Order: sequence, then structure tokens, then C-alpha cells
Amino acid sequence: MSELHLPQGYNLRPLEKEDFDRGYLQTLETLTSVGDVDQEHFNDIVDYWKSQPKTYKNLVITDYESQVVAVGSLIVETKLIHSCAKVGHIEDIAVRPDQQGKKLGLYLIRQLIELAKEEGCYKAILDCDPKNEGFYVKCGMSRAGLEMEYRF
Amino acid sequence: MSELHLPQGYNLRPLEKEDFDRGYLQTLETLTSVGDVDQEHFNDIVDYWKSQPKTYKNLVITDYESQVVAVGSLIVETKLIHSCAKVGHIEDIAVRPDQQGKKLGLYLIRQLIELAKEEGCYKAILDCDPKNEGFYVKCGMSRAGLEMEYRF
Repeated sequence: MSELHLPQGYNLRPLEKEDFDRGYLQTLETLTSVGDVDQEHFNDIVDYWKSQPKTYKNLVITDYESQVVAVGSLIVETKLIHSCAKVGHIEDIAVRPDQQGKKLGLYLIRQLIELAKEEGCYKAILDCDPKNEGFYVKCGMSRAGLEMEYRF
Repeated sequence: MSELHLPQGYNLRPLEKEDFDRGYLQTLETLTSVGDVDQEHFNDIVDYWKSQPKTYKNLVITDYESQVVAVGSLIVETKLIHSCAKVGHIEDIAVRPDQQGKKLGLYLIRQLIELAKEEGCYKAILDCDPKNEGFYVKCGMSRAGLEMEYRF
């Protein structure tokens, strides 16, 4: 795949609790409803994720003002099949609307795929709306199956 | 959904290390290649799963001879979206071929969906081959999206 760079002053790094005040939830809200999550709830979830560092890998892209402009997560699942293989589940990708056109989503997906590889996963997967298939094909992914759901 | 019962002498319970000698891997092999997993590797993975009990829920159905005839897992993912909601990922469902026709797969999926509900998930999801969509519709599930993958 062609090399891709972040704009000047932008950085990719793991999520920190301080990102609560740097617009993490506002960026996540681009994806779907976040609901009423205060600093305490946010800290609880970040603490929970960090207590399972082999499972939860949560990344952010910040801009030159250190604001969170894109977010995405990798959930590493350890299996027994394929000689105790791992699978990386890419989840909850969001890019702030005013940051579109900078290929931040593409950069983030590639980094999450690379992270899955580093973690020893034999594949990285994600579920998406059929209308977003083209974007994920641009990320080097291909259609593997159907997502089925049961909502409570 | 209509009530469903296991055949006489069959049981549903969490995975135990002793299931290595009760045909766990042979049943899992129905799904896909398991590869070379000895008792030590098996124990390591079971220990790893049990060290994250809020995340990994691994169930087995045993027959009247205590042999493992069906297996399935639920991975509970904690999110920030939807007021810190959880999602249950149903993974690695397998039923021993000589046990087909007893609705063990249907029973297992329903139990994993019920477990996801008990764990506070707002939905249970899984990825499947399009040819298996009909089975999961019988389980009460519906199509939600596409699974995309990147294989290493």
C-alpha cells in the first residue's frame, strides 16, 4: 500500500484519560449516540480497558492543538482455532466532520491493521454498513461475510 | 421464541480444562482447522480466558457420556458509545457432525444471546457465511451489515 502521512502537527497515540477534555466523546459522537458519559464514567471505562491491555487497544489522532479529531479501537481476541490464533476486531472508528478529506480514517484503519499484525493476529476484521464497503476496500480489506445481530 | 430443551443426559456448562480429554478440540475442528494444540497450550488458553472472566465466556454442551458435542463462545466488549454499553460477540460455534438434527446449535446460540443479555449487552452480534444466514434468522437474528477482513 502507498505510504500515508498525517498532516503537520497531527499525532497518533493511545487514548489517555485527559482526552475527555480534548474532545474524545464529541469526535466519537460522529459515529453514533454516546449518551450521558461524565468524566467519572469515562475514567472507569478507560481504567477497565487499561486493565486488559492485551485485549483493548484504543488509539486517537490529535491535531496541532492536541484536540482529538479521530478515534478507533482494536479488540484482540485470543482463540483456540488455527493453533491458538488471535483475531483483531476493529471497532468504533470516528473522524470529526470538519476533518474529513485528510485521509485520517484511512490512516487510522491502516494503523489498526498494522497493530493487529504486530499483536500476532492472523486477520483483522470489522463490521460495516454496506454503503461503507468501498472505503474499507480502499483500506485493503475485502468482504468476508455477513454481520448478524440480535438487539435487546 | 419457542422453548427448547437439550436431549436427556445432555448439559450446558462453562468450559473446563478437563474438556481437553472430552473431545473439545475434535468438536471445534468441525468449524475449522485447530492445528497442533496439546494439553499445555489448551490449558494456557483456558487460563488466559479465565483471567478475563468479564470478557471471555466459553460454553460447552456435553452428552450423556460427558463428551463435548457442541462449543461456542461469547466475547463481551465494553464500549463508550450508548452510555458505556456492551456488545456480545458470538464466536466459534461448532457442533459435532454426528450430533446434527438435535438443535444443539440453535440451543447454544439462544443461550449465548441470553448470556449477552444477562451481561448487560445492548446487542449480540456474529459474523457468518451468507449460506448460514437462514440458520441465524431461525435463532431470531437479523442481517446488520457486512464483515470486512484483512488477512496476514
